[in-house]
Amino acid sequence: MTTAVAAAHAFDQAIALKPLGGDRFEGQTSTAYWNMVGPFGGITAATALQAVLQHPGCLGQPVALTVNYAAALSEGRFVVVARAARTNRSTQHWTIEMLQDDADGPPAVVLTGSVVTALRRDTWGINDTPMPLVPAPGTVQGPPWIAPIEWIKRYEVIQLDGPLPQHWDGALSSGADTQHASMSRLWMRDAPPRPLDHCSLTALADVFYPRIFLRRAFRVPAGTVSMTVYFHADDATMRATGDGYVLGQARANAFGAGFHDQSAWLWNAVGQLLATSVQVVYYKE
Amino acid sequence: MTTAVAAAHAFDQAIALKPLGGDRFEGQTSTAYWNMVGPFGGITAATALQAVLQHPGCLGQPVALTVNYAAALSEGRFVVVARAARTNRSTQHWTIEMLQDDADGPPAVVLTGSVVTALRRDTWGINDTPMPLVPAPGTVQGPPWIAPIEWIKRYEVIQLDGPLPQHWDGALSSGADTQHASMSRLWMRDAPPRPLDHCSLTALADVFYPRIFLRRAFRVPAGTVSMTVYFHADDATMRATGDGYVLGQARANAFGAGFHDQSAWLWNAVGQLLATSVQVVYYKE
Repeated sequence: MTTAVAAAHAFDQAIALKPLGGDRFEGQTSTAYWNMVGPFGGITAATALQAVLQHPGCLGQPVALTVNYAAALSEGRFVVVARAARTNRSTQHWTIEMLQDDADGPPAVVLTGSVVTALRRDTWGINDTPMPLVPAPGTVQGPPWIAPIEWIKRYEVIQLDGPLPQHWDGALSSGADTQHASMSRLWMRDAPPRPLDHCSLTALADVFYPRIFLRRAFRVPAGTVSMTVYFHADDATMRATGDGYVLGQARANAFGAGFHDQSAWLWNAVGQLLATSVQVVYYKE
Repeated sequence: MTTAVAAAHAFDQAIALKPLGGDRFEGQTSTAYWNMVGPFGGITAATALQAVLQHPGCLGQPVALTVNYAAALSEGRFVVVARAARTNRSTQHWTIEMLQDDADGPPAVVLTGSVVTALRRDTWGINDTPMPLVPAPGTVQGPPWIAPIEWIKRYEVIQLDGPLPQHWDGALSSGADTQHASMSRLWMRDAPPRPLDHCSLTALADVFYPRIFLRRAFRVPAGTVSMTVYFHADDATMRATGDGYVLGQARANAFGAGFHDQSAWLWNAVGQLLATSVQVVYYKE
């Protein structure tokens, strides 16, 4: 037993919001989760969800989240507005806007989104998407998880399949089939480890780099435009997962006319499907 | 050549909106697309998209749509508010709310949503999700596409795999594997045929009945809570598809604690992936 008060985890610091009254919350971007031209999209999505979960009017647990990245956040202060558009007996519909001051006029919208929360009840259930057979976290060491961006250091990652290309030679990837040509698989968790919750799971759903980099080893400007996460895990499954590794898998369906999609699946180490996610990614050339 | 003015297609009548000025549009629910306790969710989603596409400020073509079904619509008038939250050089972020009068107070929110539109440019592209091998529409006749609900008649459907169970005996479905256990495949198009566009494609993405009915042949209350559609097809691909059949495939990843997801893929008859979609469905028991 320790009696010292632990400093908050970097993740909790990054998503911390100060209530401004009503539906408004104030946050600060985190240098610890900085990406190339703004914060890591996963931490921004987690912060949007956090505003809903922290709202005194919030009913139940998150079922679905959609965030639309309207602009890169600037370093500094932002405001999240989380509004319960409709509250039913067992579901609640939230709309989210994230705003930042704009020198040229009124605060500008940098993110829009929506969250569905619900009282989750015991029902019949089944997982039809079993975890793929992969080596357990302690038994394997993948290629190094490094990149000259800060947020990468906030995750312990063991890359199994589909790491970033070593040679940016424009070569088309080849997999066992087209399903595998854009597929990455990796074990991941917060660094240092932190018990999983819906906010940190949201961020994990965005850890996968844009599939265009894998499918065609060519550096092009690319960024997520919209992301949707469905939470299959309730609070009890989160607690059972604790701070253990999460297996992530991502792949794209199609690339064309400046956008590609990517789907992601996240399981805990005992094979429970925690979340599924989709995102659409802008790319150039 | 005909000189008679054709009556508008039932689909166009159903999604027709009258501008009220600014970001507001007025519509009427359509009995032609009636479901059990409200309109077919696909027609409601299509109407939400229509408000954005009809807005004089709309930039480009739709890339992503999310709609959250907050409540069943009542028969009659509704208002759609479509607001450009942010306009960038080549992308635009829309928020949507659908409202209906409420005897007890101010108009109530029945749907929230968001749309990303973009100027789509020629880029490198590839379809990594080829159409499954299925019989061509003219060569096969599936089980009858009938149900005691009106909107079913607005679609020509050839059911290939995973039709509604004939016997509601609670039996678990069996497929070649868990991927197929909740899978339906069908050819579909508007009845009478109508050239495909982003609005009608949105509705097609919701034609699949809740996977819970297939996975466990047991009638339970169920309904879509949120749906996201990513459009891979641009206007040119839509024109090339014309009023031909679209192959749809849907399956679930996981069921539990009152909700299941389902993913859908839509191809035209020459195998172009037109859209991918996910939805989360509430179910009881």
